[in-house]
Amino acid sequence: MTKSTVVSPQAVRDAARDLFASQGYRGTSMKDIAQVLDVSAPSLYNHVPSKQDLLHTIMDVAMDRALAALEVALAGVNDVADQLRRATEVTVLDFLENPAEVTVCNTEIRSLEEPYRQAIIDKRDAYGRRILAVVEHGCATGRFDVAEPRVASFAILEMGNNAKAWFDPRGHYTAQDVAALYGSFALRIVGHRAG
Amino acid sequence: MTKSTVVSPQAVRDAARDLFASQGYRGTSMKDIAQVLDVSAPSLYNHVPSKQDLLHTIMDVAMDRALAALEVALAGVNDVADQLRRATEVTVLDFLENPAEVTVCNTEIRSLEEPYRQAIIDKRDAYGRRILAVVEHGCATGRFDVAEPRVASFAILEMGNNAKAWFDPRGHYTAQDVAALYGSFALRIVGHRAG
Repeated sequence: MTKSTVVSPQAVRDAARDLFASQGYRGTSMKDIAQVLDVSAPSLYNHVPSKQDLLHTIMDVAMDRALAALEVALAGVNDVADQLRRATEVTVLDFLENPAEVTVCNTEIRSLEEPYRQAIIDKRDAYGRRILAVVEHGCATGRFDVAEPRVASFAILEMGNNAKAWFDPRGHYTAQDVAALYGSFALRIVGHRAG
Repeated sequence: MTKSTVVSPQAVRDAARDLFASQGYRGTSMKDIAQVLDVSAPSLYNHVPSKQDLLHTIMDVAMDRALAALEVALAGVNDVADQLRRATEVTVLDFLENPAEVTVCNTEIRSLEEPYRQAIIDKRDAYGRRILAVVEHGCATGRFDVAEPRVASFAILEMGNNAKAWFDPRGHYTAQDVAALYGSFALRIVGHRAG
């Protein structure tokens, strides 16, 4: 019996994302993905050229979304403390709202082949440089006071990365509450002084 | 030809740790591990009951080492700010010194079966509670001022988790320099006031 269900590229990506997050890229076969989508493994290749291509697309879409959200968060914001608060909040919200994608991005850069690998690292670095530029600008204008802006910007980026592991959307805090707390931690890390 | 090389339990764990870190638990077979050790796959079962048992042992040894190092770092330290600084430093040093183990502990709790899974989560939670207790004690005694000690303690634990990704031991900072920076960030996050 030939299965002929039509699946969207988005559905394929979502199924692959969840499987990569729960059992790893190498531990997931195209057959596993086809099974979740209820299509035959050979027919899956009508939708995607390869498992490697799927992994890259999942990460690329995730990075583009995060980079775009960061630009929106910073657009028209002039005060450097507001910039850092907003950049941190949008980073933490992205972590909380896309837990499976974040797991894949965190863990499977190891599984990307070139030139995919470098392309994703470049986007991740671009995100980090945007945060670092805010921290450095704050230091240069005397609003922030931190010995090592580069290390501080890494700490700010990382501190909420695993919040998805303990955050409970039905719990005491909303995602926005959590993001706001991390925003205040970021300002403390850089030694923010009121302007 | 029968391979009869004698391998130590430590060598088996180290080989498995590196493979789990680089290609994931599910993406690694006992045959892969045997190949690295240059023994036959069947003979590997003389050393370890199962791949699952290996994963649990790797994480259990890592958690016990981290918990013991935390206790050593806090032993005889009475000032709560010194406690938080030292706890943060020893956490970051553990992250920097054991990158493959940290990757496995971060990513493969998903692959643990019960009762192993809960046992490792319990140890991870015990580590987190020890940090939280320091933060709460600092708040209760007026030395720290932070709205949500629980979230602050998560941020402190997480902020250096991925420092291994950018830390270069031949670079500008030593591991101890990096740990000291994160210690100062932790004190800032909790709003430390000099005693």
